[in-house]
Amino acid sequence: MKYSEIIKPTLLINKNICRNNISKMAEKAIRHGLNFRPHFKTHQSAITGSWFRDYNVKSITVSSVDMAIYFNANGWKDITIAFPVNLRETEKIDDLKKSIKVNLLIDNSDSLKYLENKLSGSCGIFIKINTGYNRAGVDAENFNLLDQLAENLRKSKKLSFRGFLVHSGNTYSAKSEEEIRKISFNSFNKLINLKKRYAHLFDDIIVSIGDTPSCSLLEDFPGVDEIRPGNFIFYDLMQYEIGSCAFNEIAVCLVCPVVSVYPERSEAIIYGGAVHLSKDYIFMNNQKTYGLVTSINDTGWSRPIKNAYVRSLSQEHGIIKMDKKDLINIQPGNLLGIIPVHSCFTVSCMKTYYTLQGEKINLF
Amino acid sequence: MKYSEIIKPTLLINKNICRNNISKMAEKAIRHGLNFRPHFKTHQSAITGSWFRDYNVKSITVSSVDMAIYFNANGWKDITIAFPVNLRETEKIDDLKKSIKVNLLIDNSDSLKYLENKLSGSCGIFIKINTGYNRAGVDAENFNLLDQLAENLRKSKKLSFRGFLVHSGNTYSAKSEEEIRKISFNSFNKLINLKKRYAHLFDDIIVSIGDTPSCSLLEDFPGVDEIRPGNFIFYDLMQYEIGSCAFNEIAVCLVCPVVSVYPERSEAIIYGGAVHLSKDYIFMNNQKTYGLVTSINDTGWSRPIKNAYVRSLSQEHGIIKMDKKDLINIQPGNLLGIIPVHSCFTVSCMKTYYTLQGEKINLF
Repeated sequence: MKYSEIIKPTLLINKNICRNNISKMAEKAIRHGLNFRPHFKTHQSAITGSWFRDYNVKSITVSSVDMAIYFNANGWKDITIAFPVNLRETEKIDDLKKSIKVNLLIDNSDSLKYLENKLSGSCGIFIKINTGYNRAGVDAENFNLLDQLAENLRKSKKLSFRGFLVHSGNTYSAKSEEEIRKISFNSFNKLINLKKRYAHLFDDIIVSIGDTPSCSLLEDFPGVDEIRPGNFIFYDLMQYEIGSCAFNEIAVCLVCPVVSVYPERSEAIIYGGAVHLSKDYIFMNNQKTYGLVTSINDTGWSRPIKNAYVRSLSQEHGIIKMDKKDLINIQPGNLLGIIPVHSCFTVSCMKTYYTLQGEKINLF
Repeated sequence: MKYSEIIKPTLLINKNICRNNISKMAEKAIRHGLNFRPHFKTHQSAITGSWFRDYNVKSITVSSVDMAIYFNANGWKDITIAFPVNLRETEKIDDLKKSIKVNLLIDNSDSLKYLENKLSGSCGIFIKINTGYNRAGVDAENFNLLDQLAENLRKSKKLSFRGFLVHSGNTYSAKSEEEIRKISFNSFNKLINLKKRYAHLFDDIIVSIGDTPSCSLLEDFPGVDEIRPGNFIFYDLMQYEIGSCAFNEIAVCLVCPVVSVYPERSEAIIYGGAVHLSKDYIFMNNQKTYGLVTSINDTGWSRPIKNAYVRSLSQEHGIIKMDKKDLINIQPGNLLGIIPVHSCFTVSCMKTYYTLQGEKINLF
């Protein structure tokens, strides 16, 4: 992607970094005997998804029925829809699973009964478990409900129980590797207990975990059979702050034109706002930070410019704080690179991204 | 839009409310002798834009060059691009202004010089003024820079000075009508001073203001010639909390399937997350609130359900807090309506919305 060709906010990805990130995670899965079922909700694209085939990936994770349909149309035949099943899309799911292997998530009896009645044939089911994130899932200690679900699954002629699935999203707010380890192992222990408790009812219970911090940082996965990280392909500022990646493993940068410079305020305005980056932020050096600032050229982006950050976002404006000594070298019409806080959202906002070589990649 | 046809997160708008909101604002503009130049960045659609024609609107505001090109293709011929001019799009601007009236925003000498050199013919210019919001704009007291810009504009053969443009975005965090009035009048006074200061250089200096809270709440606009509100067509929770609108003037609601219910936590999960609503939040009753919850049926949505609100958003999940007595009536597969915090962002995330009558409206 030539610097001179960029005229408005443009999302760049470094394909080499992406492939290194995939390779590293695929090797880790092999090393630990884990099934690698990457989540495709971060990159959301058939082209980017196709890179995983070079690392022998055959099973994937998505976050919606429509995303499953899209990736199936692009050749993926073993898909877990890692979102509590939306019963209003049962017909679409039923169509989809006629030709490929689909796994659904449930965490309540109503949904299980409904699927049992409405689906036309066999389908894989994971029970979503809550081990402390407190978003979706059956509490790992709620044996009343778990026993009931297990019993109904055992009796079902259509629904095949695959195992227990967890997403420890609480690792995203962890402050250290130690804390991530603690959260993960607490979760693993609960899942090991469940596996034991229901071993007499089912063969081959799969324990599937998903969060990028654990998958990136840990080197032991007791009781785990499958990993479903998604963000790791691009990483971002949040993952960098957590410690999941090095800066040079971040594969994504939003390139934005500078539209105004205010040396007296140590600030500049870029064309690049919340509709491009999303409103996710983290605190860095006690400052609300919506992105770090890099310089860019035809070959990519630099390390972050020291003391520079996005302090605020409106719909299309981003306000950048920067030292005066750096600001005097910047003029309206220049480009700056912004390392996003949360790449999943930035990609979802932008709908299109480009490799450094200029290949255009559209989202589904 | 039939309840039974909604199977995934779907943005509904109430066209009657939209038309009432437009009518009220258009009448206010007439009553006060103001030019009404609505901002189209909230609804972003040719169809919705066409409703303004019934209220004799001929001039509009947009936030990007591409949006200007889109609305011009749909018959709008007098457009202010209310964003500090992006010099990297000068060629596109030059093409556009050959056939229609375009006004650009500048707040620095570099951009002015560049346009003077590069534009092929005449173009309207507003100087963007900062009266306290501290985003873009020349500080209203920075007479050095203002004198210099005015002098260069006076000498220019191409660039026609139109006036001073301000966006008092600080009214969005105001806590009372009194505070909004104070912010606005402080801004108006500064603009009146500028108008006087440069009256000897230019005829017909326009003072243009833009924020929805001021335009909605004020009944006097001393010194103001033009209003550019955008959000008011839909309004949202933020505007309701500020006091800009009544609840029944909010024209937009995201309909979401319930995927799981947790009576023991007084919570439910909806299919509807940050990629649908955006991550904007406000504090209501000391709670971070990403939306209020309504019941919906074939004819629209209800008043908010008491004590119910969206407490958290992930990519596709929304977590709803709700009293147990209301939660027991809700099952996976039901629909709930979410009143968004910030409709501009929700519309931008969704890219498509539907009238209650089922008309599909795409964004540009």
